[in-house]
Amino acid sequence: MSPRTVRVALLGYGCVGSSVDRLLTDRADEIEETTGLRLRVVRALVRDLRKPRPFQPPPGVLTTDFGAICEDASIDVVAEVMGGLTPTEDYFRALLAAGKPVVTANKQLLARRGRELARAAELARLPVRFEAAVCGAVPVVRILCEALPPRSVRRIVGVVNGTTNYLLTRMEHGRALDDALDEARDLGYAESDARDDLNGSDAAAKMALLASIAFGTPASLDQVEFSGIADISPRDLEEARRAGRRVRLVGEAAVNDRAVVVRVAPTELDEHHELARVPAAFNEVALEGDGFGRLTLRGPGAGGPETASAVVGDLLAIAAGRATSHLARLGGAA
Amino acid sequence: MSPRTVRVALLGYGCVGSSVDRLLTDRADEIEETTGLRLRVVRALVRDLRKPRPFQPPPGVLTTDFGAICEDASIDVVAEVMGGLTPTEDYFRALLAAGKPVVTANKQLLARRGRELARAAELARLPVRFEAAVCGAVPVVRILCEALPPRSVRRIVGVVNGTTNYLLTRMEHGRALDDALDEARDLGYAESDARDDLNGSDAAAKMALLASIAFGTPASLDQVEFSGIADISPRDLEEARRAGRRVRLVGEAAVNDRAVVVRVAPTELDEHHELARVPAAFNEVALEGDGFGRLTLRGPGAGGPETASAVVGDLLAIAAGRATSHLARLGGAA
Repeated sequence: MSPRTVRVALLGYGCVGSSVDRLLTDRADEIEETTGLRLRVVRALVRDLRKPRPFQPPPGVLTTDFGAICEDASIDVVAEVMGGLTPTEDYFRALLAAGKPVVTANKQLLARRGRELARAAELARLPVRFEAAVCGAVPVVRILCEALPPRSVRRIVGVVNGTTNYLLTRMEHGRALDDALDEARDLGYAESDARDDLNGSDAAAKMALLASIAFGTPASLDQVEFSGIADISPRDLEEARRAGRRVRLVGEAAVNDRAVVVRVAPTELDEHHELARVPAAFNEVALEGDGFGRLTLRGPGAGGPETASAVVGDLLAIAAGRATSHLARLGGAA
Repeated sequence: MSPRTVRVALLGYGCVGSSVDRLLTDRADEIEETTGLRLRVVRALVRDLRKPRPFQPPPGVLTTDFGAICEDASIDVVAEVMGGLTPTEDYFRALLAAGKPVVTANKQLLARRGRELARAAELARLPVRFEAAVCGAVPVVRILCEALPPRSVRRIVGVVNGTTNYLLTRMEHGRALDDALDEARDLGYAESDARDDLNGSDAAAKMALLASIAFGTPASLDQVEFSGIADISPRDLEEARRAGRRVRLVGEAAVNDRAVVVRVAPTELDEHHELARVPAAFNEVALEGDGFGRLTLRGPGAGGPETASAVVGDLLAIAAGRATSHLARLGGAA
């Protein structure tokens, strides 16, 4: 049986985008044997065509013209891995209007504009998926949307920002925040602009998304009480460590009689606590609920290849023509 | 919008079957609001109609006649939660021949006859799912089949039998095996016949299934080297514990140049090892691979409501008409 070719476009060809292209190229045979599909990245939107890139696509793939993607009827699905709110939201809406399903890794956009975008996707009757937007390679969105009975989760608790988890583990061994941040950047655990990590808003956006999906009640970023790690001193962390305690940036979301509470804060934990033992740069999410008890997921929360793995999972679901729209779950009950 | 009613039949109405019925009944409104579907258990096959049951279905649901399910064209999907190999395999094939998709929790049947059943399902063009067959509420089958790029996993390691995990944690505190087993039965962690747990064949069947799905190469139960915990003395476990070591029944599957090795054996671990810290009666599976690094899943490995949660996830996928057949992954590369 000859494979069906699925033409993919990327918005963005940085760390995640190029990893998606590489993954689809390197594993094309395994994907075809398992799914009967051949996914090819045919266009990728970038700002600068001449920038040197670790994985160089064939000539003609990179473009600076969004219209070359949006107006190309032969493109089957688009992965948005450029981040940001503007012009990303406009692109997102234009793609839906043009009939293209979207996969996105953009947690800030979804946490701020998820309900509106969900409505646009519903009107267009197109699936939108965003596994990569929450906890990198950890498939928590899929599990909440598909594996567990709807609204059976009552509480979510986790370490959902790998950058701060890395920084805290370094600072408790005496590193200054700025030095630890430089290390994190060298290791690919932090972006050049780490403000959203440090002030807790990255974790807050993820927890708001998880709460919205899990509880069936939209939780906006404004509702999340959050604080970050910028004011924590290495000395306090070292002292806590010597006393058998660890400070971690913990997110918690709970529902009770339809009231949803979402919080992110540095939290002191016993060193044997499950969340105190999450490896640096990893994420861990525990889902507690009726019936299934407690389900814990741990994995790399960031990184190009790791995030790309989640993007590819969503692309394959949409390419197979069987994907439910996870974005619909952000709109609350239908 | 009025919901679409989906008529479900169960083969078996024991601990898992009655929990499925209860879950679908108790959460009918949440399921309908989220999916637009109303799932109703309309028939359940049992051996004895008069047996007292904790959750009593309405009159007319229980039947001793398999034909009343297989030949009823109004039944949309069947969940096989009766276990065993005979007559279960015949029922399974008859349901496929009658055009009914099947959800099953039967790991022994799939580990022994999975390839043949996968072929029958493929011929019938029907989806078959079996999340509940491996690690109870832990959605590892779905993650391997859908969330990760095909064949990106290189190694699987885990504690996949909750019964023996409970027994070992009790024995290392001095309990005799038989006493610990009685406790496990009282707590619902072990069935009356626990031979498959004790001799390792339950864990072996799960590891064979996981290896087949993950590596795209069918691994039969015969290929698994396994040993159980029946010959381990509480004294040895206590001594290990005092020395900061724990013995756990560890399963491992790895692929290398297309050769697949699957093993299950009691294994001594440092007390701080992730697998030494899996709570009694829980399961934990770590998936290691290209791109995503290491993904760990932990949750209740058994129990009626926990297993029912996995069955319902599969029923909802099939009821929505979008389910890929996970069983197809047991047949190896297409």
